[in-house]
Amino acid sequence: MSDNLSFVLKKVDTVAFEQRPIPDIGSHDVLVEVKKTGICGSDVHYLVHGRIGKYVLESGKDMVLGHESSGIIAKVGQLVSHLKPGDRVAIEPGATCRTCGTCKEGRYELCPNIRFAATPPFDGTLGRYYAVPSDLVYPLPSELSLEDGAMIEPLSVAVHAVVRLGNFRTNQSIAVFGCGPVGLLCMAVAKAFGASRIIAIDIIPHRLEFAKSYAATDAFLPPPLEQGETNVKFSERAAAAMKAVLDIAEQGARGIDLVVDASGAEVSIQTGIRIVKSGGTYIQVGMGRPEVTINIDIVLSKQLIMKGSFRYGAGDYPLAISLVAQGKVDLRPLVSHRFPFQDALLAFETTRHGKGSDGKGVIKTIISGPDVKVDEL
Amino acid sequence: MSDNLSFVLKKVDTVAFEQRPIPDIGSHDVLVEVKKTGICGSDVHYLVHGRIGKYVLESGKDMVLGHESSGIIAKVGQLVSHLKPGDRVAIEPGATCRTCGTCKEGRYELCPNIRFAATPPFDGTLGRYYAVPSDLVYPLPSELSLEDGAMIEPLSVAVHAVVRLGNFRTNQSIAVFGCGPVGLLCMAVAKAFGASRIIAIDIIPHRLEFAKSYAATDAFLPPPLEQGETNVKFSERAAAAMKAVLDIAEQGARGIDLVVDASGAEVSIQTGIRIVKSGGTYIQVGMGRPEVTINIDIVLSKQLIMKGSFRYGAGDYPLAISLVAQGKVDLRPLVSHRFPFQDALLAFETTRHGKGSDGKGVIKTIISGPDVKVDEL
Amino acid sequence: MSDNLSFVLKKVDTVAFEQRPIPDIGSHDVLVEVKKTGICGSDVHYLVHGRIGKYVLESGKDMVLGHESSGIIAKVGQLVSHLKPGDRVAIEPGATCRTCGTCKEGRYELCPNIRFAATPPFDGTLGRYYAVPSDLVYPLPSELSLEDGAMIEPLSVAVHAVVRLGNFRTNQSIAVFGCGPVGLLCMAVAKAFGASRIIAIDIIPHRLEFAKSYAATDAFLPPPLEQGETNVKFSERAAAAMKAVLDIAEQGARGIDLVVDASGAEVSIQTGIRIVKSGGTYIQVGMGRPEVTINIDIVLSKQLIMKGSFRYGAGDYPLAISLVAQGKVDLRPLVSHRFPFQDALLAFETTRHGKGSDGKGVIKTIISGPDVKVDEL
Amino acid sequence: MSDNLSFVLKKVDTVAFEQRPIPDIGSHDVLVEVKKTGICGSDVHYLVHGRIGKYVLESGKDMVLGHESSGIIAKVGQLVSHLKPGDRVAIEPGATCRTCGTCKEGRYELCPNIRFAATPPFDGTLGRYYAVPSDLVYPLPSELSLEDGAMIEPLSVAVHAVVRLGNFRTNQSIAVFGCGPVGLLCMAVAKAFGASRIIAIDIIPHRLEFAKSYAATDAFLPPPLEQGETNVKFSERAAAAMKAVLDIAEQGARGIDLVVDASGAEVSIQTGIRIVKSGGTYIQVGMGRPEVTINIDIVLSKQLIMKGSFRYGAGDYPLAISLVAQGKVDLRPLVSHRFPFQDALLAFETTRHGKGSDGKGVIKTIISGPDVKVDEL
Repeated sequence: MSDNLSFVLKKVDTVAFEQRPIPDIGSHDVLVEVKKTGICGSDVHYLVHGRIGKYVLESGKDMVLGHESSGIIAKVGQLVSHLKPGDRVAIEPGATCRTCGTCKEGRYELCPNIRFAATPPFDGTLGRYYAVPSDLVYPLPSELSLEDGAMIEPLSVAVHAVVRLGNFRTNQSIAVFGCGPVGLLCMAVAKAFGASRIIAIDIIPHRLEFAKSYAATDAFLPPPLEQGETNVKFSERAAAAMKAVLDIAEQGARGIDLVVDASGAEVSIQTGIRIVKSGGTYIQVGMGRPEVTINIDIVLSKQLIMKGSFRYGAGDYPLAISLVAQGKVDLRPLVSHRFPFQDALLAFETTRHGKGSDGKGVIKTIISGPDVKVDEL
Repeated sequence: MSDNLSFVLKKVDTVAFEQRPIPDIGSHDVLVEVKKTGICGSDVHYLVHGRIGKYVLESGKDMVLGHESSGIIAKVGQLVSHLKPGDRVAIEPGATCRTCGTCKEGRYELCPNIRFAATPPFDGTLGRYYAVPSDLVYPLPSELSLEDGAMIEPLSVAVHAVVRLGNFRTNQSIAVFGCGPVGLLCMAVAKAFGASRIIAIDIIPHRLEFAKSYAATDAFLPPPLEQGETNVKFSERAAAAMKAVLDIAEQGARGIDLVVDASGAEVSIQTGIRIVKSGGTYIQVGMGRPEVTINIDIVLSKQLIMKGSFRYGAGDYPLAISLVAQGKVDLRPLVSHRFPFQDALLAFETTRHGKGSDGKGVIKTIISGPDVKVDEL
Repeated sequence: MSDNLSFVLKKVDTVAFEQRPIPDIGSHDVLVEVKKTGICGSDVHYLVHGRIGKYVLESGKDMVLGHESSGIIAKVGQLVSHLKPGDRVAIEPGATCRTCGTCKEGRYELCPNIRFAATPPFDGTLGRYYAVPSDLVYPLPSELSLEDGAMIEPLSVAVHAVVRLGNFRTNQSIAVFGCGPVGLLCMAVAKAFGASRIIAIDIIPHRLEFAKSYAATDAFLPPPLEQGETNVKFSERAAAAMKAVLDIAEQGARGIDLVVDASGAEVSIQTGIRIVKSGGTYIQVGMGRPEVTINIDIVLSKQLIMKGSFRYGAGDYPLAISLVAQGKVDLRPLVSHRFPFQDALLAFETTRHGKGSDGKGVIKTIISGPDVKVDEL
Repeated sequence: MSDNLSFVLKKVDTVAFEQRPIPDIGSHDVLVEVKKTGICGSDVHYLVHGRIGKYVLESGKDMVLGHESSGIIAKVGQLVSHLKPGDRVAIEPGATCRTCGTCKEGRYELCPNIRFAATPPFDGTLGRYYAVPSDLVYPLPSELSLEDGAMIEPLSVAVHAVVRLGNFRTNQSIAVFGCGPVGLLCMAVAKAFGASRIIAIDIIPHRLEFAKSYAATDAFLPPPLEQGETNVKFSERAAAAMKAVLDIAEQGARGIDLVVDASGAEVSIQTGIRIVKSGGTYIQVGMGRPEVTINIDIVLSKQLIMKGSFRYGAGDYPLAISLVAQGKVDLRPLVSHRFPFQDALLAFETTRHGKGSDGKGVIKTIISGPDVKVDEL
């Protein structure tokens, strides 16, 4: 345990493999040997832009990338008795303070003191070792592979959006805008929860096809934007078309109980508000441009509930793992591309361009390891 | 009971006093002799524009105005035993179907079949008589005047926004944008519920002064918009100033639990999202322009709950009446102007211009009667 | 439509087939030709005891029995446009006032003015015709037979207990005491909602076997009561055995989120409180002796939630029908015995004794018709 | 800081003043010099019985008594920056693990790993020094005395019962059985929350008088138990009398929304279930004999919610302090007796007998200090 090869963002568009000190662990912590790491849009965003919103990679302060990881426990702190070296675990990558009001009230996802992997200034998981409080690693039941373990992170994002904030219940209907990994996982969660109807919306036909094969009961390809048409006008037209084609009502059994936007696109937000049922719930989980124009008159007259969903909170990891272990969610079809650690940069490039060298569209890219030593690179 | 003098909107900007047939009542209905009617912004809006959103006064179909009313029961239906002629009552002006899903599930404010007074094509209450299902009139305890009874309608709007949707609880803090009648009543409800802090925001200093004298603990006058500044930029600056001046935090005891926008102004909405605490609730009750630009990134990262609030629902009238009867809300200071029925048009004009002939700012205008007969006009 | 043959309870243990006037219907009502009626324990109880709690069959006031029915619409009221003669429907047998506080607040199951079929003094559904408000009949999708339609009543009881009051969610665990029709349907609902674990408890082995074949994941046969052992002592021993055998914990993934008692037996109640997890929910749906001894110290120290569940409320019938239509609940295995209308008394006797002439245990008995005329009896 | 004089329970009915080592504190802890400690019924119960339920003082393992305390910070851990020596604080006496499911989900009151003061085997606060995690001491605003600070503990018990579990809201009605400190504080909290009606029930007239002078709007003295009458029969008669005298209805504005039993007496529990409104909530906070007979038929037919309430959880201490700081709750009238530390045994005896040497009934007894040194005793 002297080698902690890591994949480090030095500055915008500049990464390097570097040796990093192996983190010390406290008496309640564990040291995990990282085995599988998914690449998230936010990782790519840091690589390309060096920032997301208020989180900025400061000059001279480089950062290990990665936060969707699983691994094998290498060492446990003195007071950790429920885990042991060799245990396969999923890693929840945000350590919170446990003492502020939001932590105590069960909403630790709002903790202002959170130390989240690969969010400046905190290092991420794309190294050989990652240290984390022992209650933030979750043993993987035998039904879950280490790849599944890495996918628990985005699945927990979906659980948080659909179940915790969306309060989704069996027999309700859902529409999800955006068929990327989080959108697809929102559909998978809704399916696992016994949705009566799952509508996928995307502008790329093959993504819609995949969504239908994976979890959606209906798919909708919005019409093209017309010349000179504003987004608001377009959303009005798209919503009308969608309602007609899919027989969507304002209320009752044909109403849409929950809309989740996993695209971040302004037109999706605008259209989503129009198709959700009266008194229904709209969840924003996708990040796009910060300012969007919405029809507040519709929010008001339909008495909608709109909520922003960010990361995950208490119980989300356990629920996500349980859904997979019981076979209610299948994560394997989402892993489209795999790379060894030494090809991490290629993995990022592939994710960024959304298509592999094989021409296949990217859903989720997983990086293994590092199983190499520094001097093998 | 042969005279049903009514104040009728004929078309945009054209009203008339007219004799209307006295409505028949069913076995579960009551006929109320209307005594006091408040004028609402929506009444004025129909007078000036002939429409609000999708509700349009159709050509040739005139409509009696008014929906904030109290009165005295003139007649009761055959099967009505809990009320009798002479009873003083507040009138809830929306009759719902009672059989659709939303009615049965306790959210009748979402009933698609609602027949709401002075919303086309349904006549309002500004006549001598108004017929209504007997469970939609509420006897006034002796502590309430008939004017109080008319004010129960806007108070119920505030109860719905603050209590039902805002889930406001004792010891929470609230900020209210807009010091018109609904904004002031939202503050009054928050005060009655034991708010720890009530912040009033308005751009007119004397309205802020009134708010502080009435219910607010703090008042904030936003800085002026700067040349070339966008609304979004302005809201960022206004929110920062507000946080600094009033010591508002993102979380904890100095955080704002609930923001209610009763102004409908885009900058209020933008500023409100910025000042509400992380995980907090934002309620839209004011109607302004239908499209507004909001910072969806803030909604997401703070995991806000945004809700539209419209009218009122089950239990709102009884709660509103009870708060007044117990002395927890005082409605009298809000009635700034009073007119006899024959001056109804003047009452509308005064409300529209926001200032009486006495130079005094309008909060709420009340029309009495009609106590005159048609031939006395 | 001149024949309304009915099965009438005259007094304790005395029934008769009688001709009854065909009910008039109001403008919002429908007249249903009853086709299938399940027998409920309460029907048998009225036959045997003439009363249930405060509901007493008064002397000289006979009553048509039956309240779990489906049928075909024979006539619709003047203002009913969404239904037509010939429609197959499930009948919700309790008409509420729609104007009291509980009705308006969405809890019509608490309406003090409810007129419930076969609850004195209101006639039940075991006749040729039954009149009911049109919003209380629910069209049967093609996937549901008329027998399924009759079974929607007890399924709604289960939906109310498990979903509405028990707030049961996907991936939670449940234990159900009593494997009669309601207990089995509670398990079926939990299964449809994606329960992680469903434990059936009963003192009759073949009922447990059926429960496992139908919906339960685990079954538990309590040990026999020992000589001189009190119920409380027994429950302590039974709970300990159950925890050991089934690996039940006080908290976490091995804890029982929800306990439903569908037996009404004191020992079940006592045992249920002991096995539910800390902070968990206990629902009483079974009716037994009115007074029971419970360990209030456990309710307190585990901070349990205990709720009584009675009949069903808003949305329960639609949800029940939808679960069956989607194939999430299969009602057919529960119908153990079938009788033509003229054998109604035999059907009651069979249900009362819990075993048919074929020696087969009764789960649910269904009476068809009446398809005979009075003079054919 | 070398003297840690403590009041130690050696075995049943045997206490001693002893010198104890001053506890070490961790980097996130504080050491508090205890100034005021209230005596709770549970302290007396340990003194007299050596146990409460499953918590047993083991032979040879003595325990410092006391858990309702305030004090002044003597020392802070290395990483504590928001507190400093000299700060006046209320002490929350239960340290939880922060890592189990219930802690993370915001219900730390259910934590199985809680270390609670004066609950075997954990020492209490009746010494000179008490060490506690820094987030479990709450600075006292200037409006609160150190005696108020000690009273925050029982006030938090009331906040938890009435607000968190009882979900009590402005304008609701409450009935509280038992006018001891916790019962009185439940009334005080209900008053602070704007109760429409607060009914006190007790069998001792002068306690009822005090309740009315303190917070109740109504008081009820149950009739005497008749010869040969069972508790259940008595409760039926007492509830009927109470309904008649106080005009209590089953539903609506004259219904009782929330019943809290702070007596632990079986007849109170039985009566409480009878007087709470249909669909209402019953909270058990008082501890009496473990087994009680209840009318489960009433729980079922009225669809009641019954909950056990134990100690307090997230946000309860801050809310309690804030209510006092704002003047919404006045704690001073409840402190009936005061003793210096060296008279601690007399304080316990006084509390146990419920009457001081002055003949005055005990509500709350407060012990100061220790301000003496060991050799001064």
